[in-house]
Amino acid sequence: MARMSTARTTIDFDRSGKQIGFVDIPHSPHDDAWGATRIPLAVIRNGNGPTVILQAGNHGDEYEGPITLGELIRDLDPGMVSGRIIFLPAINLPAVLAGRRTSPVDGLNLNRTFPGDPTGTITQQISAYVSDVVMPLGHAYVDLHSGGSSLNILPSAIIEPAPDAAHRKRNMEAVLAFDAPLTVVIDNLGEPRTSTATSVRAGLTTVGTEMAGAGTVSLDALGICRKGVRNVLSHLGVLPPTGGPPAARPENILRIPGHDGYVLATTNGVFEPFHALGAEVHAGEDAGRIHNLADPGRAPETVRYLSDGIVYGRRQPGRVVVGNCCVTVATRYEGELA
Amino acid sequence: MARMSTARTTIDFDRSGKQIGFVDIPHSPHDDAWGATRIPLAVIRNGNGPTVILQAGNHGDEYEGPITLGELIRDLDPGMVSGRIIFLPAINLPAVLAGRRTSPVDGLNLNRTFPGDPTGTITQQISAYVSDVVMPLGHAYVDLHSGGSSLNILPSAIIEPAPDAAHRKRNMEAVLAFDAPLTVVIDNLGEPRTSTATSVRAGLTTVGTEMAGAGTVSLDALGICRKGVRNVLSHLGVLPPTGGPPAARPENILRIPGHDGYVLATTNGVFEPFHALGAEVHAGEDAGRIHNLADPGRAPETVRYLSDGIVYGRRQPGRVVVGNCCVTVATRYEGELA
Amino acid sequence: MARMSTARTTIDFDRSGKQIGFVDIPHSPHDDAWGATRIPLAVIRNGNGPTVILQAGNHGDEYEGPITLGELIRDLDPGMVSGRIIFLPAINLPAVLAGRRTSPVDGLNLNRTFPGDPTGTITQQISAYVSDVVMPLGHAYVDLHSGGSSLNILPSAIIEPAPDAAHRKRNMEAVLAFDAPLTVVIDNLGEPRTSTATSVRAGLTTVGTEMAGAGTVSLDALGICRKGVRNVLSHLGVLPPTGGPPAARPENILRIPGHDGYVLATTNGVFEPFHALGAEVHAGEDAGRIHNLADPGRAPETVRYLSDGIVYGRRQPGRVVVGNCCVTVATRYEGELA
Amino acid sequence: MARMSTARTTIDFDRSGKQIGFVDIPHSPHDDAWGATRIPLAVIRNGNGPTVILQAGNHGDEYEGPITLGELIRDLDPGMVSGRIIFLPAINLPAVLAGRRTSPVDGLNLNRTFPGDPTGTITQQISAYVSDVVMPLGHAYVDLHSGGSSLNILPSAIIEPAPDAAHRKRNMEAVLAFDAPLTVVIDNLGEPRTSTATSVRAGLTTVGTEMAGAGTVSLDALGICRKGVRNVLSHLGVLPPTGGPPAARPENILRIPGHDGYVLATTNGVFEPFHALGAEVHAGEDAGRIHNLADPGRAPETVRYLSDGIVYGRRQPGRVVVGNCCVTVATRYEGELA
Amino acid sequence: MARMSTARTTIDFDRSGKQIGFVDIPHSPHDDAWGATRIPLAVIRNGNGPTVILQAGNHGDEYEGPITLGELIRDLDPGMVSGRIIFLPAINLPAVLAGRRTSPVDGLNLNRTFPGDPTGTITQQISAYVSDVVMPLGHAYVDLHSGGSSLNILPSAIIEPAPDAAHRKRNMEAVLAFDAPLTVVIDNLGEPRTSTATSVRAGLTTVGTEMAGAGTVSLDALGICRKGVRNVLSHLGVLPPTGGPPAARPENILRIPGHDGYVLATTNGVFEPFHALGAEVHAGEDAGRIHNLADPGRAPETVRYLSDGIVYGRRQPGRVVVGNCCVTVATRYEGELA
Amino acid sequence: MARMSTARTTIDFDRSGKQIGFVDIPHSPHDDAWGATRIPLAVIRNGNGPTVILQAGNHGDEYEGPITLGELIRDLDPGMVSGRIIFLPAINLPAVLAGRRTSPVDGLNLNRTFPGDPTGTITQQISAYVSDVVMPLGHAYVDLHSGGSSLNILPSAIIEPAPDAAHRKRNMEAVLAFDAPLTVVIDNLGEPRTSTATSVRAGLTTVGTEMAGAGTVSLDALGICRKGVRNVLSHLGVLPPTGGPPAARPENILRIPGHDGYVLATTNGVFEPFHALGAEVHAGEDAGRIHNLADPGRAPETVRYLSDGIVYGRRQPGRVVVGNCCVTVATRYEGELA
Repeated sequence: MARMSTARTTIDFDRSGKQIGFVDIPHSPHDDAWGATRIPLAVIRNGNGPTVILQAGNHGDEYEGPITLGELIRDLDPGMVSGRIIFLPAINLPAVLAGRRTSPVDGLNLNRTFPGDPTGTITQQISAYVSDVVMPLGHAYVDLHSGGSSLNILPSAIIEPAPDAAHRKRNMEAVLAFDAPLTVVIDNLGEPRTSTATSVRAGLTTVGTEMAGAGTVSLDALGICRKGVRNVLSHLGVLPPTGGPPAARPENILRIPGHDGYVLATTNGVFEPFHALGAEVHAGEDAGRIHNLADPGRAPETVRYLSDGIVYGRRQPGRVVVGNCCVTVATRYEGELA
Repeated sequence: MARMSTARTTIDFDRSGKQIGFVDIPHSPHDDAWGATRIPLAVIRNGNGPTVILQAGNHGDEYEGPITLGELIRDLDPGMVSGRIIFLPAINLPAVLAGRRTSPVDGLNLNRTFPGDPTGTITQQISAYVSDVVMPLGHAYVDLHSGGSSLNILPSAIIEPAPDAAHRKRNMEAVLAFDAPLTVVIDNLGEPRTSTATSVRAGLTTVGTEMAGAGTVSLDALGICRKGVRNVLSHLGVLPPTGGPPAARPENILRIPGHDGYVLATTNGVFEPFHALGAEVHAGEDAGRIHNLADPGRAPETVRYLSDGIVYGRRQPGRVVVGNCCVTVATRYEGELA
Repeated sequence: MARMSTARTTIDFDRSGKQIGFVDIPHSPHDDAWGATRIPLAVIRNGNGPTVILQAGNHGDEYEGPITLGELIRDLDPGMVSGRIIFLPAINLPAVLAGRRTSPVDGLNLNRTFPGDPTGTITQQISAYVSDVVMPLGHAYVDLHSGGSSLNILPSAIIEPAPDAAHRKRNMEAVLAFDAPLTVVIDNLGEPRTSTATSVRAGLTTVGTEMAGAGTVSLDALGICRKGVRNVLSHLGVLPPTGGPPAARPENILRIPGHDGYVLATTNGVFEPFHALGAEVHAGEDAGRIHNLADPGRAPETVRYLSDGIVYGRRQPGRVVVGNCCVTVATRYEGELA
Repeated sequence: MARMSTARTTIDFDRSGKQIGFVDIPHSPHDDAWGATRIPLAVIRNGNGPTVILQAGNHGDEYEGPITLGELIRDLDPGMVSGRIIFLPAINLPAVLAGRRTSPVDGLNLNRTFPGDPTGTITQQISAYVSDVVMPLGHAYVDLHSGGSSLNILPSAIIEPAPDAAHRKRNMEAVLAFDAPLTVVIDNLGEPRTSTATSVRAGLTTVGTEMAGAGTVSLDALGICRKGVRNVLSHLGVLPPTGGPPAARPENILRIPGHDGYVLATTNGVFEPFHALGAEVHAGEDAGRIHNLADPGRAPETVRYLSDGIVYGRRQPGRVVVGNCCVTVATRYEGELA
Repeated sequence: MARMSTARTTIDFDRSGKQIGFVDIPHSPHDDAWGATRIPLAVIRNGNGPTVILQAGNHGDEYEGPITLGELIRDLDPGMVSGRIIFLPAINLPAVLAGRRTSPVDGLNLNRTFPGDPTGTITQQISAYVSDVVMPLGHAYVDLHSGGSSLNILPSAIIEPAPDAAHRKRNMEAVLAFDAPLTVVIDNLGEPRTSTATSVRAGLTTVGTEMAGAGTVSLDALGICRKGVRNVLSHLGVLPPTGGPPAARPENILRIPGHDGYVLATTNGVFEPFHALGAEVHAGEDAGRIHNLADPGRAPETVRYLSDGIVYGRRQPGRVVVGNCCVTVATRYEGELA
Repeated sequence: MARMSTARTTIDFDRSGKQIGFVDIPHSPHDDAWGATRIPLAVIRNGNGPTVILQAGNHGDEYEGPITLGELIRDLDPGMVSGRIIFLPAINLPAVLAGRRTSPVDGLNLNRTFPGDPTGTITQQISAYVSDVVMPLGHAYVDLHSGGSSLNILPSAIIEPAPDAAHRKRNMEAVLAFDAPLTVVIDNLGEPRTSTATSVRAGLTTVGTEMAGAGTVSLDALGICRKGVRNVLSHLGVLPPTGGPPAARPENILRIPGHDGYVLATTNGVFEPFHALGAEVHAGEDAGRIHNLADPGRAPETVRYLSDGIVYGRRQPGRVVVGNCCVTVATRYEGELA
């Protein structure tokens, strides 16, 4: 937090009760020399208990998280809370307003900019604000993702790996408490620039999600997300306990098996998948075909799975170029959990 | 056909057997002064029988049709054909290669340019080629659509209204032969610039489809489309008869009830639907809510159905602006069919 | 009106009382296949009297008109009205939302598309709706302009020339009733594609304005516009008479003296004007200098007035390219008025 | 010429001596509501003789013509002229300033818009000015082209076909007088929207050129163009006779053999040509290969000539997409010349 | 200055007399592999005295500074100078040529890139050149700003805060010598990346300005700027003394009261201000309204002042989005000045 | 190599024989959340000998290198190799596919990003992969350039200066072995961010080329490049020796004489060169003229050479803006070579 910041919020993080406001990050583009990027921010504080940071809108085309947090902000009775909830329901607001994964202002993917830079571009300033100002206030951090415009993913709660066993256990228990139909370990191939990797490095209990996607609002995933967020808050003691234990079990955790989990396009064209989400598939099996629609006389090109597992996600847009992720496979997790 | 054309095709429409080629429409943009827009074209001719025009790729982000026609072009044994099939599997090629509804070259929606203009922009030249050169060769015309990037639609076969009763009957019978799960009358509010409206004006038996959408390739819809196209060809006598009569029945035809079939967005934000595709709904009932994610303290705005019916299609992208179509309702068709 | 239209309005033009609604013009771009461009429309009808069409937002970066009409729509008591007022307060809505003179959808200047084309692009469809559906309902037509982003103009009421003397007299009297500080005859060099030229051809009493500009909201011009619109409605008998006769006098009318009224840039650079708006100037006198900021050693280039008169308008953006209008001069009108 | 025009020129076409000025075509885009597109125009008139229209800059990335005409405008002594020369040295000025074939304002290729439309977009207004105002003043019309950014062409003078034998003879003689290294008949596949097709329809003696290209200024082609334009003016009697008869002979005229003259790309990639400009080639011979640089393991695809002849032009940019013109072949002209 | 630089200037900073030249910063984009960004630079040196750096064009849409410096460069007699003046009249040349606040090349705001990076993008290379090469040569630094396209500001001289009291006094005295109608302390909320913050850190006497704005050239502000720059040069001893003491008094200095000085938009729409520039206003008072022009039935939203003071600046473009600066208030400065 | 990398290659650098594969660099833009940028990579290993890295496609519009390396990859018999060849035939694949010097993804020039940043943008990740993973495997590094879209250069082999005499000698000998018609020392004005400067810092024997350019494929340059690469591989002992010693002699080496080697545009317009490539020219001599095509009455502006030498390269596009490189001169190299 030694890094300078020109941001200013209307929220008093120490005050009890419910506050709905924003943080203004001064930004000086061509069309607004002295204005700000205004990002919604809310806090509900009551009694004693931990501080949980709930974030959504990290990518601007993933909607179940922002809708769920907006409802909680409006509907939650502060008297029910023990501790503090900090809501960042649309953290990458320029991307959220554009309905795009990446910021329309500087082209950056916020989730590849952590821990940010307070003297960088606007997206780097946003991640710096989260890293420098918000994360130090929290005990736990929940970052709600969906598949976005390019992917359709089975609704699932996500475990970010932690090097420390006790931390790993904390994360796992919080994620299982979410009680999603699936629980998956995703390490983004070791990528250190994500918000959850940063949260883990900062020592916070960390929970992620992937809620359907396809750039739309899924009725089913929205229901799972609504329940899951409350479940986690209960698990962490900030809301009263829910009825019973979650159905999600540690022995059923999946993981993306590294590079082999991704079936990437080998040519440009239109991808026709061969299996529905959730289907069981095997390494070497045909995953689908890529059609060259400009040349109907040419046979389509087949792509194959590189790992056994289930079809965990697939590309939404029909068009692919070489290297695009066509299908993602998840397999049984066999690493240590604690 | 009195209108001039600089187009040239490698196909001899009168020759027997299978030809896979293209039509070149000269086009002189900045980066290619003397080249052409090359659009795939195939013909299979054998024996006696009618000429059926099969078209797909009218919109460039609707994939079930182009995939189906590509397979037919590659796989169909000419000896099975009685008459002639003309394939235009990616008619708006610039849009198909871009994966966009509209042409990246001139911004036009091909299906709002018919009957085209041979001295207009490239999209207008394409529709002029179809209207002036191809349609006069045909007895029947099948234009395969899906919902595209912005809509997810229940797979269905589409009846284009015709003023003449006998013609209407011909169209209805051919569309029912497609044997889609749903059959729907769509008149695009009377829009005269579509390919099917033009085909009807030209007297051809006319069949349309709407195959899922969401900018992706649907496994289910692809299966329906594959079977349906062959069913229509059999019905028209160009392929041998299929086993039995179609399940689609004239008494089960639906229609879009004009402007009242469309639930349009009343504000900008993210649309959360309340019902799944196929659900039965009623005029006045809440159809969903539009969330303002930048302002979580503001309650979302509710939109309502204007007609009884079933949820026939819904918007795919979460983001809406005022006037966007959020949901489309189809209701029972009670007009004359013949 | 024989031309086809797929537009649909929620307004019943024949109903008494106040209705605030819109007209939906179906539009089928990439991101919204089955939606509409929704343009605000309001009607207040009461008792007997003429129908006056009030339009603003013809150009999307001219704000005094839309603000004035919005206030009238909200504030006017229908009981005060004798006849009917049809409000089109943001007629080129896509341009209004973009804050641009021209449409972001098809790049067209609505005021160069009249009488429009119902099968053309969206801007041509909008002008066709005004020409085909709205103008035939009216006796008088008021089109409220400001200078827009590129010009800063002395607030004035505008007379569109009419070939018929009686019509010309009607127009002049209505424009003088507006009671702007200046009254100016503008014929856009004979341009026939404007809304007011079309309104005159349709026989309606026609009133225009130019209210400041510079892409901003002028406090002064807004005050003039608010009063002027009510003055015209009173003059036409739709609102009760105002206190006294207008200060504007037919003997003080100005005109743009054709091509000689425009001082156009002769080189690229930054224009430094030599006179304030309203200053009296003479043909041949220096009007300003164009600076080449990349080459400070080069002397700026002087441009000169081509006509005597007053400085009626000037370019707002500092940057000019050859042909840009730097200054506009108005001179005494000496033609016939009736 | 009955069509309306808002254009205004500073040139008096009837005055003797040299005038260098412009024509202003009013144009009202977002950033300049009341300005004009200012197109350079010059006239030199002296004594008696025909009127020759010299045009360049039809495409904005073809430079030998504009440079040649600029020199003539500055250097030609009016006393040398018998008759009148009208210079349009940069007719599509927006394209010339952008260095692009097509207009950056409306995307149109001026040479596909003739005879234009005075109420159309700016490019259509420019071609309407040429067709309606300038061509009626002329006896002969010379339109100077080069290959532009996409083509490198052997410097040549171009004959536009004329249906009338006497007219055809006039054209041929004027083109041969240009005395280019090659003389070629090009009909653009019958395209009627070019300036030279329009000039022929208007009865003017018509001369075209293709001067190298590749988007650059060719020293050699510039020398040919400088001499050729003066040769034509001498031939037409507007300048004094040059020393001797041209070297170009009617029996050496070439032509583009229709569609077969163009080797179009059959796949996307980078085109490697096999022959230099001017090489003699044969139908069926390999013309070059298209490399897929993203996939070095894949063998390149060979394209072949469709006609005997010489390599008359080739594509300049290495990248090609399907349909791009890779090579153009010219063959001996055997049609009638008069 | 230990940082590497590939820049090269034609100016010899040590030579006496007047030199007008440029600095070339090599830049290798797509369309010019081996060229440079050429930025104008001039030096006038004579006798003994301090070195004053005069800079303008930091933002490319602020014109009074570049015009004033261009005139000085052309008009100043070197014999009048005691010491050295280094002119950077269009420092962000790519932005100046585009008439934009930010660079069209890399999208950066030069005044948020100091002290720059000689291996960064072009804008970062420019600020590195100023920081590394020019600032070390100077005793004083004057950076001339106007309000730019987005703001209209009361013409004023600007004090950049300095932590050292003697430095602060030097700055204040130099700024008061400018003798603008207003003198204002602006710290950009502590932003360290501006040129004046960098100049202060480097120990130079530092003067800023804000000269009107609105993206235009203001006659009044230009007059103030012309006189002010000469006043400062006299004050610093580089030009002979002017007649009398400045009217600007230290007891009349204003300041922007931090975040509370800015009235930011709370919704999207068109901002209607309630007060003219210079009006006295109070915290809590209505500052204006934001109109939703697409929905005339909805009442506009009121925004309020957060501080007492005078209206120092206001937004120029009518359109606002949430967070845009609508109005800026300045209040009496009560901090230490020395 | 301590820097983290998420890249993964299908190539086993240690395996003998020929492998053709790719490296995937994960990249998460809007339209492909979990995919990769797939860059072709090949290795041929056999027996003992040094490792030579052959790279092309550093700039995406330079084609002789990628074509040559693709042929070698497909055609080279591994049995001929002694040691290892690592092929990076299209290293900046996004730029290669776009046919642009700079990346369409982040706008960066790869050859100004070395040694890259594994947590930066995609172009920085690519240069980090080369610097961190590939260069440490090599003894020699060959980077094949051409002039690109903006320059046409005499085909030549390039010496990157090295501070160490023995290293300099190694480089010189390898470059002369290439046996290009010209050999030139280019230091890019000391620019440290190029691949060859980085290779020299890493101690590798380093060879560069400039093969024609103009954005096209040159038949002549392609022949030179094909032979030259094999010559270098022979010289380094990886391929068997070629017949005889190269014709290129150390006493005939040229160099770009720093800033004076570049004739930069002094005004905007169209550049007409006065000398062909290879012509001998002298400092002070006219190099060409810049024409203002919009103003034919204005005389063109002459630019002059700043150094004696030969015309080594010239600008391809006719259009220039101030600072563009019009001509490059090379002069005799007189520095030490070893």
